[in-house]
Amino acid sequence: MHIYDLDTPALVIDLDVLERNIADMAAHCKDLGIALRVHTKTHKVPEIAQMQLAAGSQGIVCQKVGEAEVMARAGIRDILIPYNILGTQKLRRLTALAKMAAITVAADSEETVRGLSAQAAADGVTIRVLVEADTGGQRCGVQTPEASRDLGRLVADLPGLELAGMMTFPSNLRGQAFFDSARELWARDGLPCEVLSGGGTGLEAVSKQLGFNEHRSGSYAYEGLTRIQKSADLTPERCALRVIVTVVSVPTAGRVIIDGGQKTFESYPPVPYGLIIEHPEARIHAMSVEHGHVDVSGCNHRFRVGEKLSVIPLHQGKVTNMHDEVAAARNGEVVCVWDVAGRGKVR
Amino acid sequence: MHIYDLDTPALVIDLDVLERNIADMAAHCKDLGIALRVHTKTHKVPEIAQMQLAAGSQGIVCQKVGEAEVMARAGIRDILIPYNILGTQKLRRLTALAKMAAITVAADSEETVRGLSAQAAADGVTIRVLVEADTGGQRCGVQTPEASRDLGRLVADLPGLELAGMMTFPSNLRGQAFFDSARELWARDGLPCEVLSGGGTGLEAVSKQLGFNEHRSGSYAYEGLTRIQKSADLTPERCALRVIVTVVSVPTAGRVIIDGGQKTFESYPPVPYGLIIEHPEARIHAMSVEHGHVDVSGCNHRFRVGEKLSVIPLHQGKVTNMHDEVAAARNGEVVCVWDVAGRGKVR
Repeated sequence: MHIYDLDTPALVIDLDVLERNIADMAAHCKDLGIALRVHTKTHKVPEIAQMQLAAGSQGIVCQKVGEAEVMARAGIRDILIPYNILGTQKLRRLTALAKMAAITVAADSEETVRGLSAQAAADGVTIRVLVEADTGGQRCGVQTPEASRDLGRLVADLPGLELAGMMTFPSNLRGQAFFDSARELWARDGLPCEVLSGGGTGLEAVSKQLGFNEHRSGSYAYEGLTRIQKSADLTPERCALRVIVTVVSVPTAGRVIIDGGQKTFESYPPVPYGLIIEHPEARIHAMSVEHGHVDVSGCNHRFRVGEKLSVIPLHQGKVTNMHDEVAAARNGEVVCVWDVAGRGKVR
Repeated sequence: MHIYDLDTPALVIDLDVLERNIADMAAHCKDLGIALRVHTKTHKVPEIAQMQLAAGSQGIVCQKVGEAEVMARAGIRDILIPYNILGTQKLRRLTALAKMAAITVAADSEETVRGLSAQAAADGVTIRVLVEADTGGQRCGVQTPEASRDLGRLVADLPGLELAGMMTFPSNLRGQAFFDSARELWARDGLPCEVLSGGGTGLEAVSKQLGFNEHRSGSYAYEGLTRIQKSADLTPERCALRVIVTVVSVPTAGRVIIDGGQKTFESYPPVPYGLIIEHPEARIHAMSVEHGHVDVSGCNHRFRVGEKLSVIPLHQGKVTNMHDEVAAARNGEVVCVWDVAGRGKVR
């Protein structure tokens, strides 16, 4: 079936592009001499995670316990959840997961590590813990090298836990002094620090420079228009994801309405909200809930009701989270349809 | 179970607020003397649609065929889909629906009505059609009263279709001259115009003034922070929807991180992204994919890791579309959990 024969809106992956993106990132990290750990939150598709592992990723990252459950069910055996896991319900699911796979989590507080330890010890499993450091990202993370050492010591002392090392997000050279100091403090205390993990697509070399031995990249798999607009080396041909839409109305010569809006594209500024591959001079300038508004006044093409278009969405990782399935295609022909199995796993 | 005992993030409806909003809108339309047809795209929950019908709505609106299928399966027998339905796959599903329920659709082009007619005639059903008029909304819709008459005539002439009347969105007094003229043209041709349908929560009186006999309102059920900020008569107590979250990190005295971000809240500017009921002086100023960033420098309360908070989200209708289920609660106690059965029905 050709992708234009799919009912619309339809989420489609170009497999050639996806495979190239996966291979290129694996080669880039290999060249740098840093281990790649792929973040699956961008695609949430176990089949793609398996492709990434086959290309040399040493494990995966999930942002939610529910996503990790999906990936473990698909046979993946090394999962990092870089998140403070709290509350009995999630902790019980986490220890159940730890019986199926090697599970590592992040923590930045005593409350988090004590909760992890109590549940892991009660359920007879070991959870690996990375101490999360805030080195400018202003999200989670301990604030000083001393605090990282103190929390590391607590993790090392508590039952059910294994101290694995440290992590931060995003990788930033401003963190150099923090990590130099922290490593010294950890070493002085004899704390194990097997893993130093950085993150953020495009920041692999920064992690290497910081002396890290692992990097977490995710969005490169689909590649985003935003990053492409900022990079001289990237073109829209690197974007693997597209939404096939139908023109549902041509109310005026300059205006075309497509059958995908906010609930298909997760649209928000900046405009344009996506790139129409067949007519790059058309401009998706507005979206209502279920309609996309396209200014075609700059196009010579005469659009007709019922015509199909392929749109590279602006927010690729978020678009995935709106759709239950995605068709994988090669040269415009659908090869298979994958469940976005990790979609909507908010917990 | 108390709502604070739900694993987080958890989508919760305050039933008392929902029931009040439903009753008030029904009374408002009754007072105005205009029929209410509730739009279900805000909640996508059949149980809530049934509550709205019981309160006096004469039927429902769905924006997608997939949403209509969910509602028809739940026993709802009068459904308007104000959308140009195109393509064999959707048209076949539409005629299947028309065997279960009275189905009305909108159309603004010959292509759309010819497609509807061919499939309806082939499958032996009747589809009711409203001619959609663009009266300033600049989305879909015919552009002139004459074009509405010509399309109405085509609908009346084609097999499998029943001409029901006209619709527009949003209702706007600028449309007065258009509809006065269109009605005259339709009457002169003897075209039936049983329904004149306007739309938009808060625009019920505008529809009445335009001489319409039906109004489509949807977002009033949950009520949105944006509309509340613009209205002297509304307060956050009218917002039925909230997201229960957990504080997962307190990295500094002024910063709190909660376990809901863009994939929980569908957040985009303006900030703040929601109102924390327990601490309205806290400010959700940023969101990453799975974290909410809260500035608590203006709060006297000392936040602790593991604490639960109730957030009224900024974009209520869109938040619903991120979640597979919603807990219905009264006085903080969970009464039942509903599937968001219409969620993600992009087609």
